[in-house]
Amino acid sequence: MKTWKELQSPLYCDPDRGLALLDQRLLPTKEQWDFYRDEVEIAKAIKDMVVRGAPAIGCAAAYGIALGARSFPNQATAMRAAFDRAKSLLGASRPTAVNLFWALDEMEKVFVNIHQKGKTELCAALMDKADRIWKDDLDSCRRMGKYGAALIPKGARILTHCNAGALATAGYGTALGVIRAAHENDPSISVYADETRPYLQGARLTAWELQQSGIDVTLICDNMAGALMAAGEIDLCIVGADRIAANGDFANKIGTYMVAAIAARHQIPFYVAAPLSTIDLLTADGGGIVIEERDAKEVTHFGDKQLAPDGIKVRNLAFDITPAELCEAIITEAGIAKAPYLESLKDFF
Amino acid sequence: MKTWKELQSPLYCDPDRGLALLDQRLLPTKEQWDFYRDEVEIAKAIKDMVVRGAPAIGCAAAYGIALGARSFPNQATAMRAAFDRAKSLLGASRPTAVNLFWALDEMEKVFVNIHQKGKTELCAALMDKADRIWKDDLDSCRRMGKYGAALIPKGARILTHCNAGALATAGYGTALGVIRAAHENDPSISVYADETRPYLQGARLTAWELQQSGIDVTLICDNMAGALMAAGEIDLCIVGADRIAANGDFANKIGTYMVAAIAARHQIPFYVAAPLSTIDLLTADGGGIVIEERDAKEVTHFGDKQLAPDGIKVRNLAFDITPAELCEAIITEAGIAKAPYLESLKDFF
Repeated sequence: MKTWKELQSPLYCDPDRGLALLDQRLLPTKEQWDFYRDEVEIAKAIKDMVVRGAPAIGCAAAYGIALGARSFPNQATAMRAAFDRAKSLLGASRPTAVNLFWALDEMEKVFVNIHQKGKTELCAALMDKADRIWKDDLDSCRRMGKYGAALIPKGARILTHCNAGALATAGYGTALGVIRAAHENDPSISVYADETRPYLQGARLTAWELQQSGIDVTLICDNMAGALMAAGEIDLCIVGADRIAANGDFANKIGTYMVAAIAARHQIPFYVAAPLSTIDLLTADGGGIVIEERDAKEVTHFGDKQLAPDGIKVRNLAFDITPAELCEAIITEAGIAKAPYLESLKDFF
Repeated sequence: MKTWKELQSPLYCDPDRGLALLDQRLLPTKEQWDFYRDEVEIAKAIKDMVVRGAPAIGCAAAYGIALGARSFPNQATAMRAAFDRAKSLLGASRPTAVNLFWALDEMEKVFVNIHQKGKTELCAALMDKADRIWKDDLDSCRRMGKYGAALIPKGARILTHCNAGALATAGYGTALGVIRAAHENDPSISVYADETRPYLQGARLTAWELQQSGIDVTLICDNMAGALMAAGEIDLCIVGADRIAANGDFANKIGTYMVAAIAARHQIPFYVAAPLSTIDLLTADGGGIVIEERDAKEVTHFGDKQLAPDGIKVRNLAFDITPAELCEAIITEAGIAKAPYLESLKDFF
């Protein structure tokens, strides 16, 4: 079994044992890797948040198809039906993550091109494609990092929300990739990590990941960002995105919108770092993005500890929409887009 | 032993058994009342957060003097020394709560006027005064509620932050008092309670208190308020205050500023409800209010559950400052103040 220290990636595929996922639910107190053998186990791991972060979910889903294909029937119609079942099972695991659908579509193209050559060749091609998706994501994070680092002033104190890090991607990270790249040039930068209720990805994952990489990080509650901005202690904000609409409006972890709005109030630049696969030109604006609502228990409990009265009503929005006007620039692996995003984003394709 | 259902107050005095306090550390899962017999036990209960909320602390401290006086010596000089010891012990229990010092000063006036008449008369007068402080606080919350309710439209969906409720006062509450008064006229109003990290007063106390009163309440994480406002699901915000400067800037629980700023962005009215004793005309503006920072463990742990990596740096600001410009009105027991607050607040005195 490999370790985070050597891999810096939340997943790797061992063809004999299946997809290894770092169980992110157990961080920061325990680093545990488990194998998931097929699309059913991987879809459940995505749904259960063993793995999270849109690019990492895309990679996991691609491996879900590649591993699942080994049990597909040989007969063409039945094989197609099995592919469709696997795709729709994986597609239903996290409805907001656009990379998930992108990765599944990429796998489908391979399936369509190769499946008539027989199952052995199909399985090899699907595994190659999943490996390629993983490797391309890592490369794209590194390119994003290089582009984004140019925007980070010396000694910057940077606020980030949720985890758009190596843990959320094939490695290196999107928003945290920019921070890593900036840190390689300038070790004096520092990071404030929003804890990111209710699931605490900031406290559990971002704080852990940056600490592991020796980057200066300070944990705060989400509701403290405004006070720190008012005190002049934050120079810029950078976050990831789960889906970016054609006009630049984007969905990201709940709370991102409040960070962007309060940053705008203090004239603090707010950046998004996300791969091109996050950009959804078919969605005109944020109004077209469906927001997942999750189980009340994420808000009312921490583990088996009860935080709220029995029977209390809860809203647990998993994401929110930040309007493009609050975003200074969108950093991608193909370069930096600025307003008007309707044009600058289209130019990438 | 009385219950919350019959009392709707976090404290009551039984002359034979002492001061009964509802242990707010055990809410929302357990309603437990315990008796505290003298100033030593009551000071410890305040320090340990059995009772919290500035007005409730003031009441508890007043009863601490009244109960403690029974053990004062009869001789005048020794009696005075005993009073001073009791006052300073209670005053040290939560040094930031303004109402605590106000209540102790009120008790001292009674002591100075009555103690030469002998201990029996003194004890009776101090107990009367403590009862009066409790009753006056309850009355002032009810008056605040009546004034504030006039600002609440029919069917309003109201966001509140932290707990400015019956649990924080002699009863009824300040911000929640306004909500109670509005609810008496219009049971169709509903409340969103911010959970209020890190101490979760919203999840543990506000949600419980409103649920107990049959007021429709929905719990959210602090970082969800913006998304709900953007979706048009919040009509107004109302919060309490710990200290209001002469120009209307005010300190309240961390996160209040972000609520006010995002509400302003959506043209959603934002109100403060607080007693006159919270207004500090000697502090010109929010810049003069010192912000307490608390222990990192409140952020990194919940009970014995660890939420963040070992050794992580933390900022834990307990309060923030909301600038007066974000506040539509300040509701007091003497009426409603609007901008310019420099004049409207002074007019109350």
